[in-house]
Amino acid sequence: MRDIPSKNVTITQVALKAGVDRSTVSRALDPKKRALISDAVVKRVEATAQALGYRPNQLAAALRTRRSGAVGVLLPDITNPVFPPIVKGIEETLRAAGCVALVANADGDAASQAEVFEQMLARRVDGLIIATAARDDLLVARCIEQRVPFVLVNRGADARELSMVVNDDRLGTQLAVQHLVSLGHRHIAHLAGPQNLSTGFVRRAGFVAAMREAGLPAGSIVNCTGYSREAGKSGCEKLFAKAPDITAIVASNDLLALGCYDALQGMNLSCPRDVSVIGHNDMPLMDMVSPPMTTVRIQHREMGAQAARVLLEHIASPDRAPESVVLQPTIILRGSTAQPRQAGK
Amino acid sequence: MRDIPSKNVTITQVALKAGVDRSTVSRALDPKKRALISDAVVKRVEATAQALGYRPNQLAAALRTRRSGAVGVLLPDITNPVFPPIVKGIEETLRAAGCVALVANADGDAASQAEVFEQMLARRVDGLIIATAARDDLLVARCIEQRVPFVLVNRGADARELSMVVNDDRLGTQLAVQHLVSLGHRHIAHLAGPQNLSTGFVRRAGFVAAMREAGLPAGSIVNCTGYSREAGKSGCEKLFAKAPDITAIVASNDLLALGCYDALQGMNLSCPRDVSVIGHNDMPLMDMVSPPMTTVRIQHREMGAQAARVLLEHIASPDRAPESVVLQPTIILRGSTAQPRQAGK
Repeated sequence: MRDIPSKNVTITQVALKAGVDRSTVSRALDPKKRALISDAVVKRVEATAQALGYRPNQLAAALRTRRSGAVGVLLPDITNPVFPPIVKGIEETLRAAGCVALVANADGDAASQAEVFEQMLARRVDGLIIATAARDDLLVARCIEQRVPFVLVNRGADARELSMVVNDDRLGTQLAVQHLVSLGHRHIAHLAGPQNLSTGFVRRAGFVAAMREAGLPAGSIVNCTGYSREAGKSGCEKLFAKAPDITAIVASNDLLALGCYDALQGMNLSCPRDVSVIGHNDMPLMDMVSPPMTTVRIQHREMGAQAARVLLEHIASPDRAPESVVLQPTIILRGSTAQPRQAGK
Repeated sequence: MRDIPSKNVTITQVALKAGVDRSTVSRALDPKKRALISDAVVKRVEATAQALGYRPNQLAAALRTRRSGAVGVLLPDITNPVFPPIVKGIEETLRAAGCVALVANADGDAASQAEVFEQMLARRVDGLIIATAARDDLLVARCIEQRVPFVLVNRGADARELSMVVNDDRLGTQLAVQHLVSLGHRHIAHLAGPQNLSTGFVRRAGFVAAMREAGLPAGSIVNCTGYSREAGKSGCEKLFAKAPDITAIVASNDLLALGCYDALQGMNLSCPRDVSVIGHNDMPLMDMVSPPMTTVRIQHREMGAQAARVLLEHIASPDRAPESVVLQPTIILRGSTAQPRQAGK
């Protein structure tokens, strides 16, 4: 395994011990400048540096070269199980390129997001993968202004000329509606996500379009203010207060759908006997919940891997044009959807 | 919200614009040295810096003061749902102290752990919270050697004189065995975690002790090589190959217990009718799986919060003695445990 040198050994100590001056040590240990020095000296300096446990000051090196080997990842909520598999995909690709991901939770208000963002830049990350983006995002504007390489992942932005790797969220809710229609449902409602986020906004648009295409009256819609089980529970209760004849719910994500499970249980309604529920994401464990959840699967790891690839290309070629990748979702049929009960129940 | 200044404005530009020299700008913007300058000049420099969007170079500042406001968190596996709530607890406490957590996944082999560790130190974090520790851990040894403030969280180490915040893992499995004994089980097996990790090792010791205290013959034990649903499934199959008369399983964590669910289904055995299963951690969604899981709840957020508190104290007082915190678990009774079926089934 790779040795971890002590941080207390200085370049001066290495120079003294090797009998050369400091600039020679610096050149000998820099792959780009090594050719300026004789092989024998390079070998002597390397052996001395290793024996003493010298670690080149990577911070100072980053200040000079503006390349650190670290990439920042901004998450909106590390406890939302959809993000860890995306991070995993990011890490696998970065690791293969010799880079490390540093993850920070940038949830909360704009001020604390800005704080985390500043800390990342201050740590001289080479670029950012942003999973926190609102449709009109302040941090994105700052990245552009400050020429920080970045890629949006999972959540896109309204501006077109940005690099982003997202799921085809519109298609996702269309698949969900089509499945319910094929089962015979007509009273289908949508529990929408936050409308300032692309996921919430685009999935809602997909729902509206699919209902129209199916020739059904517009379904009831309630917008949730966040993606959480709790928000899903209260949103579901609001849906039933508004439209008690609902036989199926398309939720904007799996946490909201789990909140529907909670609400239905509280109202003594059974899923899928009384009400079918479809989630979005197929986050881990959705095959284990009761009932196992029918949901729209997005390609988490692939999404992370593609985001890392695009970012690495931007870091290598700062003038490269933005690249937008849209991944295809699939619907996973499990136990939370069934035919509606006969009319006159 | 706080303004994010541009990184391209230099101290020289601020000095020129404010009509003072660079050292005056530097002093005026440093709360510790501000008193050396007249109030009027401080105000002028501040206004100019703000107007130009000047950001003091925090990296250079960290090099001077060795304080960065960022803390590194090393996780073994971000996709294991037990860790995000711990990170949440860490972040809440750090944020209250004006610090930010940078999280890195240090899974994989020793070489890639060392790589992540080095990257963290190179980014000048003020200290580390380590959730990856093996009982005899190389990175811990390096932290001590290099005088990096650190705290272990969730996983402890054999060495006593270290700061760590852990769960009482021995008590956890004892509570699990006592619950099963009270239901009438006698053929109780243990699906143990990796024995090089304190959690796997101590929980196994608690199981052995509790079986002895209950006057039962030593139960069958299979050690898993990792904490995953897949490892739990194959471990559970090995348990039944070894001891087909098992009526209950104490798993070393919830992922292993979910793997037992998978294995039992594959063997056409029903939980809890044929076999009771108990997990450990009460990670998110364990109330939603089928059957809802009886498990030992550890205090994730509190564990993270305490680890952050201890680390901040070490950063503030580098010579402070190590502090060890042991949190108490509780058993949460749900649907995966029941009385054993009558003999002669």
